[in-house]
Order: sequence, then C-alpha cells, then structure tokens
Amino acid sequence: MSDMCGPDEAVNLAHRLSLFNELWAQKKIADLNDYEVKLAKLKGEFVWHSHPETDELFLVLDGRLTIQLRGRADVVLGPGELFVVPRGVEHCPLAEEETAILLLEPAGTLNTGDAGGPLTRPAERLT
Amino acid sequence: MSDMCGPDEAVNLAHRLSLFNELWAQKKIADLNDYEVKLAKLKGEFVWHSHPETDELFLVLDGRLTIQLRGRADVVLGPGELFVVPRGVEHCPLAEEETAILLLEPAGTLNTGDAGGPLTRPAERLT
Repeated sequence: MSDMCGPDEAVNLAHRLSLFNELWAQKKIADLNDYEVKLAKLKGEFVWHSHPETDELFLVLDGRLTIQLRGRADVVLGPGELFVVPRGVEHCPLAEEETAILLLEPAGTLNTGDAGGPLTRPAERLT
Repeated sequence: MSDMCGPDEAVNLAHRLSLFNELWAQKKIADLNDYEVKLAKLKGEFVWHSHPETDELFLVLDGRLTIQLRGRADVVLGPGELFVVPRGVEHCPLAEEETAILLLEPAGTLNTGDAGGPLTRPAERLT
C-alpha cells in the first residue's frame, strides 16, 4: 500500500517524518473530528506559552523532549512516551537533540498559544 | 521518573501495555479535553460496527491490524502506522497475531459502537 494522502490509506509516521526537515513547524497528517494529528521536529528551546482553551498531547517518536512546566517539575519524554499538558498550564518544550513528536489538539490551535511572536505559524497539511 | 499515574508523569506506552493481558478491553491511559487515549490488545476478529457520532483513531504499536471497512478496501496497519475510521463507516478490526494499539476518541465511545452485543464493555482506567 502506498503512503499517499487518501481516505483509506495507512499513515506511516516514519515515512511522513522523512518528508520534511523544518524545525518547529507543525505538519498535519490526519483529522479526527475537529482535532488535528500533527508531526513536528524540534531542536533547542521553544517559547513559554499556554493554551487557555485546550489540553495538548505530546507523543515522542524519536529523540528526547523535556516539557518545562511553570512552577512544576519538568516532564521528560523518550520514544513511546506521551504527556498531556493541561489547558492553561504555561509550558516550554526543550529538545537538546533533534526530536520528532506527534501532537494532538483541536484544529486551529496555534503552536505559540497565547504568547504569539515570530515563531507563530499555523499547521500545514503534509502532502 | 516512575510510570505511576499522576498529573506530571510521562506515560510510557510499552510499560502500560505490560500491565494487562485481556484482549479487546480498552484501557484508558490519558485524558485530552473530552477525549480519551486508550490502549488495547487484539487478536482475532471483532464485530462489525460503526460510531455514528465520531471518527476513531487507531495507531498500531506492535503487531499488525487489518481494519475491514464495509464496501471499501481493507486498511492494513503495522507498528507506527495510524488510520482514522470516519464517523458512520462500518468497520471490523482483525488481527491474525496479537496486536497492541492506541485508540483515541471522545470519552464514552463504546468499543462495539452501534452494534452492541456480548463484547461491549466500557473503557477502564489502567492503574
């Protein structure tokens, strides 16, 4: 079976990750009702922000992700580990090595949440 | 870091899978707004059913899953592959070998959807 985008095709995560190299860009790979499943590659430290309206799921596929949480202990995720950042909790992802993640949250959720700034960009469908 | 259930703990999927052996039981491991992230182990053929109100995300973690779709080609998923069954589409999972999956759908979605029957059971939190 090919990995082309289509209604009845398996989505192979490793193959989809091979299709882009940009860091901190969210690439949409599937819809689930009004939620989006996205991939991203991270390296370095992002910006502190929160999503007042929604929880945010992080699943690490490759590498190592530290989710810094304001006033709480860091959560460190390796491959096959997930964490849900609760709505309204200020957080800042940090990846010392290049790290690949799967994200799940409502469609239209911006990567920088309430912080805005130059790193803000909408998710793009990965084709 | 331990893998106990807690607000700021990574959820290690392999470890959580090691905590149960029941087939076709959905084990809840995280909440995302009003959605649930669940694990399940499958072997054999389930029942044909649909979820008229919601899409349903399947991600294979281990093994091999065939998602039979009424009137459409089967979708076959290996580890690291996902598929979203659209709402209302009748489907029947089939696993020739024991297969571990991650499921994501709104809280309260029943495993047998609109079909009911003896295999129906609510998701239980995996502790």
